[in-house]
Amino acid sequence: MDWINKIKWNDDGLVPVITQEFETGKILMFAWMNPDALKLTHDTGHAVYYSRSRKKLWHKGEESGHTQKIIEIRIDCDEDVLLITVEQKGGIACHTGRHDCFFQKLENDDWVIDQPVIKDPEKIYHE
Amino acid sequence: MDWINKIKWNDDGLVPVITQEFETGKILMFAWMNPDALKLTHDTGHAVYYSRSRKKLWHKGEESGHTQKIIEIRIDCDEDVLLITVEQKGGIACHTGRHDCFFQKLENDDWVIDQPVIKDPEKIYHE
Repeated sequence: MDWINKIKWNDDGLVPVITQEFETGKILMFAWMNPDALKLTHDTGHAVYYSRSRKKLWHKGEESGHTQKIIEIRIDCDEDVLLITVEQKGGIACHTGRHDCFFQKLENDDWVIDQPVIKDPEKIYHE
Repeated sequence: MDWINKIKWNDDGLVPVITQEFETGKILMFAWMNPDALKLTHDTGHAVYYSRSRKKLWHKGEESGHTQKIIEIRIDCDEDVLLITVEQKGGIACHTGRHDCFFQKLENDDWVIDQPVIKDPEKIYHE
C-alpha cells in the first residue's frame, strides 16, 4: 500500500482528518485516523476514524446511523493531514444532533451557538 | 479573556486550526495556534499561527505577502478545534505556490496532483 506508506503519521501513529460535506462545502467535523481506519475508509467507501478517547476504531454512524459516504480523499503538501469529502447521511454529523460540529461562532468576545439541533441526541442514540 | 479560557488546549498548549476560504468554501490549510496566536489573530484581524517546527509565532504572509483576513472564528462541540474563515490575499495559501495545501487527491491508489502552481515559490519567497 504505497499510498498509505507515503503518509507521515504522527508519534501516536495518527493523522488529523478534516471532513467536508460534498453538497454544501461545510466542514462537518474534525477527527483522527490510523492506518487501519484509513484503509477501511478507502475499502468500504465510508468514513472510519480512530477514537483517541476510546482507543479504538470508530465506524462513523455505527450507533447514530449518520454514516459518511466518501466522495474524495485528499492529502496536504506536508503529507500529514487528510481532507475527506463526504455525503452525510441524515444531514447530521455532530453528536449534539446538529448539522456539523462547528456551531459556535465568536461574536463580541463570546462563543455563540448559531445552529439548531435537528434531532435530539437522546433519540439519535437510544432508539 | 473568558472566550480564550473556554478552549481546551492540548498537552502542548495548542489547538488544531482549519482554515477555509470565505469566497470558495475551499479548505486552504491546516495549522496550529497557541493562546498568543489566537489573541493576535483576533486583535489584528489577520491569521497568526504557531509553528511547531520553528517553535514560534508565525504571522501568515509575513514573508510571502499572502496574508489571511479573518471573516469568522468558530469552535467545535468539544471546544478543542478551531475553524477560521478567511479572505486569502493573492489567492495563494500554500508554500508550494498553489491555491491551497490539499492539491493531492487519491486516485486509483495513488496521490495525484490536480492543482497548478500559480506562482513559483522561488519568486514568492525571494523577491
